[in-house]
Amino acid sequence: MELLKQKILKDGVVKKGNVLKVDSFLNHCIDVQLYTEIGKEFKRLFSDCEVTKILTIEASGIGIACVTAQFFNCVPVVFAKKSKTSNIGDDFYSSVVSSFTHGNTNTVIVSKNYINKDDKILIIDDFLANGAALNGLIDIIGQAGAEVVGAGIVIEKGFQPGGELIRGKGIRVESLAIIDSMNDETGEILFRN
Amino acid sequence: MELLKQKILKDGVVKKGNVLKVDSFLNHCIDVQLYTEIGKEFKRLFSDCEVTKILTIEASGIGIACVTAQFFNCVPVVFAKKSKTSNIGDDFYSSVVSSFTHGNTNTVIVSKNYINKDDKILIIDDFLANGAALNGLIDIIGQAGAEVVGAGIVIEKGFQPGGELIRGKGIRVESLAIIDSMNDETGEILFRN
Repeated sequence: MELLKQKILKDGVVKKGNVLKVDSFLNHCIDVQLYTEIGKEFKRLFSDCEVTKILTIEASGIGIACVTAQFFNCVPVVFAKKSKTSNIGDDFYSSVVSSFTHGNTNTVIVSKNYINKDDKILIIDDFLANGAALNGLIDIIGQAGAEVVGAGIVIEKGFQPGGELIRGKGIRVESLAIIDSMNDETGEILFRN
Repeated sequence: MELLKQKILKDGVVKKGNVLKVDSFLNHCIDVQLYTEIGKEFKRLFSDCEVTKILTIEASGIGIACVTAQFFNCVPVVFAKKSKTSNIGDDFYSSVVSSFTHGNTNTVIVSKNYINKDDKILIIDDFLANGAALNGLIDIIGQAGAEVVGAGIVIEKGFQPGGELIRGKGIRVESLAIIDSMNDETGEILFRN
């Protein structure tokens, strides 16, 4: 998605440790016009799919998922919550997720009321790096017996193993920008064609 | 907002301790069509105001704020983040907020890059109860020297002191549904007219 790549090149900041800061437009301050274009693009990419729900994870996935859902006939958005405790009880599906960015582990939970075996679920998230969050969401959808239609990712770090890992499971992943390399000294960002 | 009140009466669940569960349509599973109507209604209520940014707080405010922003010419949405540490550094405005629902205290932070003294800010949030979160956001806007245009709240618990507290500061608060009382034994919910 050319508009997104231009925005990343203009306003993204490469930090040490393979961190790409895009908080000026994607995940702290939000460019809502860009979100709208992102939502349209996800619809274009998954236009051949029946989608009954969109699943994402708090916090930065929520806005993208809600705007995207508007292009999928306003299907419900369910967002997984992060819980510090692993003692969840019977009302939730849960999966343990390690965060690359924050260097910690969360239990990710979704109420059993909001996903069921008849659902065809599109996952939406802002980043795909090591695939931990996405893997957790796929795990939860599996627990519910629902179908994963695919995963729509805004920025994939192509030099980290998540994309290969998830695609290797037979999951369709559509990333709007895949970064092949970035350099925190020069600030250079190279996209996959 | 009649549609919202009907939804609360139909799907809201009153729990012990003045908790209203609306996670089937507002803050875990999201009715995106309802969010769209909520956004339109906020625009109608604040149509006389110049708004340069919308400020909300993670997590459940983000989706509402993004959809609402579409009706305000896609102004940027900034979401305050919750931080466990109070040692924030110089790059952030911060305010300490006690959560009624979760019984804990968070430091709420916003990067200084994303609010400035020329901003006219509409605050959007899902709930107003004791006013702690809203007060924290107003505090942060004040630190930035920006203007609070008003606060758009989806559900106000009128029997808790937040609404009076914030309006008493001269802040314009528009709540789409104000609950005057609710009963966890009968399930009854009474709205203010």
